[in-house]
Amino acid sequence: MTVGIIMGSKSDWPTMQHAAEMLDNFGIAYETKVVSAHRTPHLLTEYASNAAERGIKVIIAGAGGAAHLPGMAAAFTSLPVLGVPVKSKTLNGVDSLLSICQMPKGVAVGTLAIGDAGAANAGLLAAQILGCQNPEIFEKIEAFRKAQTESVLANPNPAE
Amino acid sequence: MTVGIIMGSKSDWPTMQHAAEMLDNFGIAYETKVVSAHRTPHLLTEYASNAAERGIKVIIAGAGGAAHLPGMAAAFTSLPVLGVPVKSKTLNGVDSLLSICQMPKGVAVGTLAIGDAGAANAGLLAAQILGCQNPEIFEKIEAFRKAQTESVLANPNPAE
Amino acid sequence: MTVGIIMGSKSDWPTMQHAAEMLDNFGIAYETKVVSAHRTPHLLTEYASNAAERGIKVIIAGAGGAAHLPGMAAAFTSLPVLGVPVKSKTLNGVDSLLSICQMPKGVAVGTLAIGDAGAANAGLLAAQILGCQNPEIFEKIEAFRKAQTESVLANPNPAE
Amino acid sequence: MTVGIIMGSKSDWPTMQHAAEMLDNFGIAYETKVVSAHRTPHLLTEYASNAAERGIKVIIAGAGGAAHLPGMAAAFTSLPVLGVPVKSKTLNGVDSLLSICQMPKGVAVGTLAIGDAGAANAGLLAAQILGCQNPEIFEKIEAFRKAQTESVLANPNPAE
Amino acid sequence: MTVGIIMGSKSDWPTMQHAAEMLDNFGIAYETKVVSAHRTPHLLTEYASNAAERGIKVIIAGAGGAAHLPGMAAAFTSLPVLGVPVKSKTLNGVDSLLSICQMPKGVAVGTLAIGDAGAANAGLLAAQILGCQNPEIFEKIEAFRKAQTESVLANPNPAE
Amino acid sequence: MTVGIIMGSKSDWPTMQHAAEMLDNFGIAYETKVVSAHRTPHLLTEYASNAAERGIKVIIAGAGGAAHLPGMAAAFTSLPVLGVPVKSKTLNGVDSLLSICQMPKGVAVGTLAIGDAGAANAGLLAAQILGCQNPEIFEKIEAFRKAQTESVLANPNPAE
Amino acid sequence: MTVGIIMGSKSDWPTMQHAAEMLDNFGIAYETKVVSAHRTPHLLTEYASNAAERGIKVIIAGAGGAAHLPGMAAAFTSLPVLGVPVKSKTLNGVDSLLSICQMPKGVAVGTLAIGDAGAANAGLLAAQILGCQNPEIFEKIEAFRKAQTESVLANPNPAE
Amino acid sequence: MTVGIIMGSKSDWPTMQHAAEMLDNFGIAYETKVVSAHRTPHLLTEYASNAAERGIKVIIAGAGGAAHLPGMAAAFTSLPVLGVPVKSKTLNGVDSLLSICQMPKGVAVGTLAIGDAGAANAGLLAAQILGCQNPEIFEKIEAFRKAQTESVLANPNPAE
Repeated sequence: MTVGIIMGSKSDWPTMQHAAEMLDNFGIAYETKVVSAHRTPHLLTEYASNAAERGIKVIIAGAGGAAHLPGMAAAFTSLPVLGVPVKSKTLNGVDSLLSICQMPKGVAVGTLAIGDAGAANAGLLAAQILGCQNPEIFEKIEAFRKAQTESVLANPNPAE
Repeated sequence: MTVGIIMGSKSDWPTMQHAAEMLDNFGIAYETKVVSAHRTPHLLTEYASNAAERGIKVIIAGAGGAAHLPGMAAAFTSLPVLGVPVKSKTLNGVDSLLSICQMPKGVAVGTLAIGDAGAANAGLLAAQILGCQNPEIFEKIEAFRKAQTESVLANPNPAE
Repeated sequence: MTVGIIMGSKSDWPTMQHAAEMLDNFGIAYETKVVSAHRTPHLLTEYASNAAERGIKVIIAGAGGAAHLPGMAAAFTSLPVLGVPVKSKTLNGVDSLLSICQMPKGVAVGTLAIGDAGAANAGLLAAQILGCQNPEIFEKIEAFRKAQTESVLANPNPAE
Repeated sequence: MTVGIIMGSKSDWPTMQHAAEMLDNFGIAYETKVVSAHRTPHLLTEYASNAAERGIKVIIAGAGGAAHLPGMAAAFTSLPVLGVPVKSKTLNGVDSLLSICQMPKGVAVGTLAIGDAGAANAGLLAAQILGCQNPEIFEKIEAFRKAQTESVLANPNPAE
Repeated sequence: MTVGIIMGSKSDWPTMQHAAEMLDNFGIAYETKVVSAHRTPHLLTEYASNAAERGIKVIIAGAGGAAHLPGMAAAFTSLPVLGVPVKSKTLNGVDSLLSICQMPKGVAVGTLAIGDAGAANAGLLAAQILGCQNPEIFEKIEAFRKAQTESVLANPNPAE
Repeated sequence: MTVGIIMGSKSDWPTMQHAAEMLDNFGIAYETKVVSAHRTPHLLTEYASNAAERGIKVIIAGAGGAAHLPGMAAAFTSLPVLGVPVKSKTLNGVDSLLSICQMPKGVAVGTLAIGDAGAANAGLLAAQILGCQNPEIFEKIEAFRKAQTESVLANPNPAE
Repeated sequence: MTVGIIMGSKSDWPTMQHAAEMLDNFGIAYETKVVSAHRTPHLLTEYASNAAERGIKVIIAGAGGAAHLPGMAAAFTSLPVLGVPVKSKTLNGVDSLLSICQMPKGVAVGTLAIGDAGAANAGLLAAQILGCQNPEIFEKIEAFRKAQTESVLANPNPAE
Repeated sequence: MTVGIIMGSKSDWPTMQHAAEMLDNFGIAYETKVVSAHRTPHLLTEYASNAAERGIKVIIAGAGGAAHLPGMAAAFTSLPVLGVPVKSKTLNGVDSLLSICQMPKGVAVGTLAIGDAGAANAGLLAAQILGCQNPEIFEKIEAFRKAQTESVLANPNPAE
């Protein structure tokens, strides 16, 4: 497994699956797991502490509301951690975004956009992180981006 | 020690000392300690996990920004945890407030106001928590509240 | 009755029932009542003033919008008061949250999250408040938390 | 006394004095008093309940943070109540504004702007409330407004 | 006509009708009219300028979004103006609330809550404004408020 | 005069002078005047109604708080109106921004950034509006933009 | 083509078509095209760089979320650029509004309201920009505005 | 050069230097350069397009206000881009944060906290990105994190 995708609750999966689907585009192996910072804190400690020696290179963590999962995962590992603010019921993910993003100096989380787009981009950024030192993956990202550009160029008429 | 007052950084002390001062009013014993959720996560785990058996009855946790300390302390203990959002540099504590308050179902934090007033009230609420089952403390709170009322009544003229 | 659950309107019940259900988990007796700070202020005064001598130990108050109920209940009692911001029609409970949480020094409300999760956690925190000086309740909370953890651990696959 | 100006704390006076000064412009008698919704709830009950029979016609209430004073005054009287959100330390008065303004159907507060301008306008609106059924006061307001207009017209050059 | 109810668009009527219905409770005569600050500025000028001499005592103005109607009506009259922030499509009425409430010193609008409750309360506050110098109306408000209180007291069980 | 720069108060001049200075760069004639939507509504009506026949091509209007000036100017003219949200004391210009920007369909204001940068850009955009049909001005803007680019390129080292 | 209407995605068309429809009212020629700042940055560079020499006078750019399209179009042209914040899924267009509006000194975007009304007004403001130096278009705008006013005046009863 | 640190203006350097200082801790080579998305868009295009072949592995981009730099850099490269929201004058960096973070699906920016802490963490996360495939850097991060933890543990008394 190269990327670990964790989330605070099963209800985060409809969002977080977009991270998994993006990694599929690049053939990057990943695992997905429910790890709750608040309900399973010992599991979180163990997961994040052991991720590096298990071969994980990047952790993607999605959570909503108080959304402590990404920041606490980052507290237990030196691997890069990417955080996805899941849209919350009452505050539309503003709470999730601020909780994930406003980390103090010394423990970092790279935060993506709220919701599905953010989850997909967490997968993409994880691939870019791997790709910046792996030419094969880098080429795949270049191709993905080029195809994406061409798809827009091929359909320039908004009203069609 | 009856109350444990923890905070994410020494820079939180000017705020959190108001919790300590409030507890002094009621003669309630407390300890104060810097425990960082992100920089000392193992200490946090240990502190919160062992608090009950050390005789702590209430934990007061203050933090700013991502402010994961109160929620993560609550994740490791069945004691009541009170959270104080410390005013943050960039967002005035809105980030701290949402991170502390918007906990998911199943792990609770009682959140106070942002800043000094919130810290003082965390001390007061801790005393009230103890007092609801301890008549001696309850009486002290009643007296404190009565004195507070009389102090306002004695100075009714705002322009003096 | 050990816990008093009050709310500003019948329309708050779908939210506040989660507090009641949580207390059922621990076998803690409670009463539920509509008490409106604005439409029945004398009832609020009476309810909060007499709660302690009626044996109530903790008051849970839920309200939306201007949401003065929790703070005004706290003004009339030395018991701990927990506030639940009910999701409001126009501002999603941000108004409720700030009105409940931003209390001045000297009168405290322990504020929970906006909406259902906050109501459930108000019940849980009330139980924790009782449990910190009552070993029997404390054990029940430990068991509840352990079961909650195990429930997450038993279903680690988000996509199932 | 025709207008009662109350405020939650002496620290609100630098803001609320602008209401008093505005009423001075129209020769309208007023009283000023510190009445705290949270620290002196019985005084608030008494003040608002008796205001009408004491001859008060309009109540102006200023408060910051949770700012329950205007809404609770309105709960105890059928007189018109005007609320002034005092700028709060941490949230610049957004909390005060929402707490004062977002009243439920059936108990109303006429809310003015945050801070000094709002306090001055509370004095002005109180005068307008009296003036709409009192031609003498109405004429004074017309004159005040005319003078205000002429003052702007007399100094049209912004750079002077 | 004693009260003028104006609004920026026909689409504001489902909200503003609550002001009319409230005035019906007290037998207060009113007129309703679409007056757009932006699309019919000359009508607004004329309406507000002539309202006093037509016998109008209070103007209620509802608007959404930029919501300039209440403030501009106030600019053209010395009558009291009450503003109702209509819930807007994109920002839930936060824009309407700030535009109506944040008036500069010297021209006042008494702002009510966003949406239906605010519109109803604008009708109530208009009645209170009339009632503070009209014992007959004052009595009707007292009776309305008493009935409202009794209605809550008669149904204290939230779960029924 | 080609551009009319108006503002609600002399206190807006330190912000709005940046619009004037920008127009100086292009040799575009302008006038500056205090026109208050609320304190001098008839002047506003007259100014905006007559601007076109006086030869004005673009109106720049700056205001803070409720900030009705730009939208009301637009209501009285078919000329393009640019609005500058002046930073307000309590809400940092968020109120000004929303009041100016959230205009209803049918009356438009082109809104710039809050504060000094927005005022300067209002001057620039006014020049661009003139320049899109005036090659001489267009060339001056191209030169200004080129010089601006070169100024950045000439100082690429941030730490110098 | 006189006006270029570009947008970041086909999904912006239901909003941006209102700009096109408004231009139809005045018989102003326009083109519509999907140009994504992020997915087709070279197309954006080319489009904005060449617009002036292709005869475009005004660019209308609509985008949601990070919404870099209007500002980046403005970076590559000296033509006036109008920005339409498209309502975003998670934050209702607040993100779009701030991204478009808060441009730094030296590169300006005239920002309209969030959503459909803003798009329609972008079309109107583009017409006004053309009209301020083109009497024929100016007259059409005057007629449009007059008809709009009469339409409101013809239906003054909100309840009909 | 392994890391490219770019920023929209020299005024961003006091913030962005914290990214440079953090990289110094790990002996990672970097370059710093002012690249303005709006004032030097061609430089941005060139910088981001060529970064990979120049050997850059990670780009750190800091910007305030509309803050298009990070997102536009990401549009022109397949390297990972980290964005630092610089605290803005009027909105405290909320505008910067949303502009940087809310990227659409397909082009990602890893966003850090607003201000100095975010800049420092951008440096740290860049190191972690390099370290996840470079054991020597990984060890240095582990040592840095361990020293950071020990520094907190060595000073547990907040009041000292």
